[in-house]
Amino acid sequence: MFKKVLIANRGEIALRVLRACKELGVATVAVHSTADAESLHVRFADEAICIGPPQSRDSYLNPRALLAAADVTGADALHPGYGFLSENAEFAAMVEKMGLKFIGPRPEMIRLMGNKVAAREAAEQAGLPLLPGARGKLADAEEAERIAEQVGYPVILKAAAGGGGRGMKICRDRSQIRQLFETASTEALAAFGDGSMYLERYVEMPRHIELQIVADEHGNIIHLGERECSVQRRHQKLIEESPSPAVTPELRREMGEVALKAMRKIGYNNVGTIEFLMDEKGRYYFMEMNTRIQVEHPVTEQVYGLDLLREQIRLAAGEKLERSQASVVPQAHSIECRVNAEDPVTFAPSPGRITGYHQPGGYGVRVDTMAYEQYKVQPYYDSLVAKLIVTGANREIALRRAMRALNEYVIEGIKTNIPFHKRVLTFPAFTAGQYDTRIVEQILNPPAPEETPASKVAGA
Amino acid sequence: MFKKVLIANRGEIALRVLRACKELGVATVAVHSTADAESLHVRFADEAICIGPPQSRDSYLNPRALLAAADVTGADALHPGYGFLSENAEFAAMVEKMGLKFIGPRPEMIRLMGNKVAAREAAEQAGLPLLPGARGKLADAEEAERIAEQVGYPVILKAAAGGGGRGMKICRDRSQIRQLFETASTEALAAFGDGSMYLERYVEMPRHIELQIVADEHGNIIHLGERECSVQRRHQKLIEESPSPAVTPELRREMGEVALKAMRKIGYNNVGTIEFLMDEKGRYYFMEMNTRIQVEHPVTEQVYGLDLLREQIRLAAGEKLERSQASVVPQAHSIECRVNAEDPVTFAPSPGRITGYHQPGGYGVRVDTMAYEQYKVQPYYDSLVAKLIVTGANREIALRRAMRALNEYVIEGIKTNIPFHKRVLTFPAFTAGQYDTRIVEQILNPPAPEETPASKVAGA
Repeated sequence: MFKKVLIANRGEIALRVLRACKELGVATVAVHSTADAESLHVRFADEAICIGPPQSRDSYLNPRALLAAADVTGADALHPGYGFLSENAEFAAMVEKMGLKFIGPRPEMIRLMGNKVAAREAAEQAGLPLLPGARGKLADAEEAERIAEQVGYPVILKAAAGGGGRGMKICRDRSQIRQLFETASTEALAAFGDGSMYLERYVEMPRHIELQIVADEHGNIIHLGERECSVQRRHQKLIEESPSPAVTPELRREMGEVALKAMRKIGYNNVGTIEFLMDEKGRYYFMEMNTRIQVEHPVTEQVYGLDLLREQIRLAAGEKLERSQASVVPQAHSIECRVNAEDPVTFAPSPGRITGYHQPGGYGVRVDTMAYEQYKVQPYYDSLVAKLIVTGANREIALRRAMRALNEYVIEGIKTNIPFHKRVLTFPAFTAGQYDTRIVEQILNPPAPEETPASKVAGA
Repeated sequence: MFKKVLIANRGEIALRVLRACKELGVATVAVHSTADAESLHVRFADEAICIGPPQSRDSYLNPRALLAAADVTGADALHPGYGFLSENAEFAAMVEKMGLKFIGPRPEMIRLMGNKVAAREAAEQAGLPLLPGARGKLADAEEAERIAEQVGYPVILKAAAGGGGRGMKICRDRSQIRQLFETASTEALAAFGDGSMYLERYVEMPRHIELQIVADEHGNIIHLGERECSVQRRHQKLIEESPSPAVTPELRREMGEVALKAMRKIGYNNVGTIEFLMDEKGRYYFMEMNTRIQVEHPVTEQVYGLDLLREQIRLAAGEKLERSQASVVPQAHSIECRVNAEDPVTFAPSPGRITGYHQPGGYGVRVDTMAYEQYKVQPYYDSLVAKLIVTGANREIALRRAMRALNEYVIEGIKTNIPFHKRVLTFPAFTAGQYDTRIVEQILNPPAPEETPASKVAGA
């Protein structure tokens, strides 16, 4: 086991890593910007080093400052947390070159998965399904028709040079292709100066489903089922749960087998997460792989009774996986709400000092946070203040527990998105488990109520 | 299910019951003394009623005030918590007579178990082992010898009228009986004016082991294994854990079978706890039964993944037990530290206002508490401020997690026993799991170090 781990991060994840180290009997070095000097991860660490001014690029994103801190303190391993340099292959290689263990997969694995095109190719070769579509640019509308037939309707035409919705058209059958291809291509040419198009299957109700992978350096690998992360606003996850209401035990087994086979082929080590897009029929498509611990890892820990941080550090130290795939079965249902310092209506960041703080507790409630009364939420970093994780015997109990805990949570002095979490948890599509990545938009902009036959009668 | 539950208690257990009710969708009525008006259970309840002045006998122990509160608010059930009137059969009967459900076993069951002599008789008849010994007074030393042979050595001679250690003698073999009987009897006569003696088997290293029972009103009953509660000071439990380091799976199965057979015979309903004395050979003897939820119930909840408060309320409402004995298996190891407002050295109560408060969190940490920054610990009630419950995959991990969490726990403005908890958790007998009810005494008054051969040499 390592003797001393440098934690190259801040906030709740720095505290999470620190706690795992303490429980493993490993000494800890905290690093911090001048803005974070009063943080809990600094206070609880065995040693702490200031690595620069508040701005991330000069502190938490500064490889030289981090490596100097590791050198000075004699750390023998470095934990990158999430965000910042956690998926920077070059940094990981520098760490290893210095003779420290980078707690994560091998640098070349980070490099492979960091290149989205190469990652998709590798995933496909390893047997992971990709969203069907044309790989290259389409020659013309005829080719679009031919490929659309293979892919199956609906398909979406996209500008090869594009983004932001321009030059995008959904085609629901063959009759629409020719006309929409011309329109989209003209739009794309006007917008991007390039009318080239490609197409892929259009998923009407996409869910974000991700699979947790745990692999040691001796060829043993397991998965810990999926997390449902479809509650997102502008690609920022807000609420995650495990298991997903959309994944049956059979589907979980199948996805797990396909994923483990691919990971063995690729030679993946340490913890990682495969992100899939899932359609309304339960078909899943590889999107990308994250080669680090995820913000939402706690829901998996709660459901499977496995301490993922402890495992991550143990496996990086060369220890063996102790659990077999057969021994990991979902035991409960867990939901995580990301409590952010932001306006619950406008979502504008709301940094500042917390003047009153009371956190929920009791059975099935876990809080991972760096917050306390008088803690100052800094404007320099992301707005995550706390992760409220509730666990219950089933989804219904977990939902009620989440509401109970959110109602107990008091954070004064700053605005938080707790009121928005309550809106999600009481939104019918969410309580029914029948939602997809459009849910936040549906909550914020509900369709105008249509005149129903009943209201017509009432109005008459 | 009930519509509205009156919670006839205060502090952390009132909050625990309230949370369970909220998660069941049941409305809550809090009661409070004038001293507790600012308590969290009052703040979070749907309704709150002041039932009297600070002194318990005029508020939480006042049946009329409680019943009036239930009447006024239209509650259809009453939860007694622990302590106060929770094992008062007369009160339970009054509640039921008013047409409310008393959340606990039937009043006659409370009455039976409340009478310690009747309870032991009933337990013995139902097949639970009692500590072997003479039931009545011994005629003379000859009878003592005869019975000691049946009971097996060592035995303890006790003054029938006595207490406090006077008139008590431990006999390790037959040769000691005659002389010690005379000495003890003379002592007893001098001390209590009555020289009558009885004897029972002497347990050198007694452990306090208790079994959790859960029974519905339809004849279904399960047990949730044992809790080890041997860390006690003056019969007040300080630390509890589940499973017990002294109970093997075979012993657990055997104890469970014997207990369930007895409970079926007695016709027990709702949750309850059978307290056993266990000797160093794993022989267990019925001591008494508690007909209420215990302070230390959370360790069982954590290990078995069953919400005992939810079950207790569900079963009182006539619902059926959903889990079978085969489906409840220990999944983890859990330790509870009772954080009391008291001097960690003298154990004198330390009421007052909490001026700084920070509670530990993260994986495997649960805190059940009514405390918050500025909360005033009242001098009128027991000194329990918080229950810190840690859970891990095994005992070693749970121990490390407990230390990690205790080190994070900040409670300022009052003294707490957190430093004493750390002493226990690092005491070799405790870490080895080889301890009994003498452990606190052993920590506080370690035997004087004897001169060892090595030290003799060093001194020479």
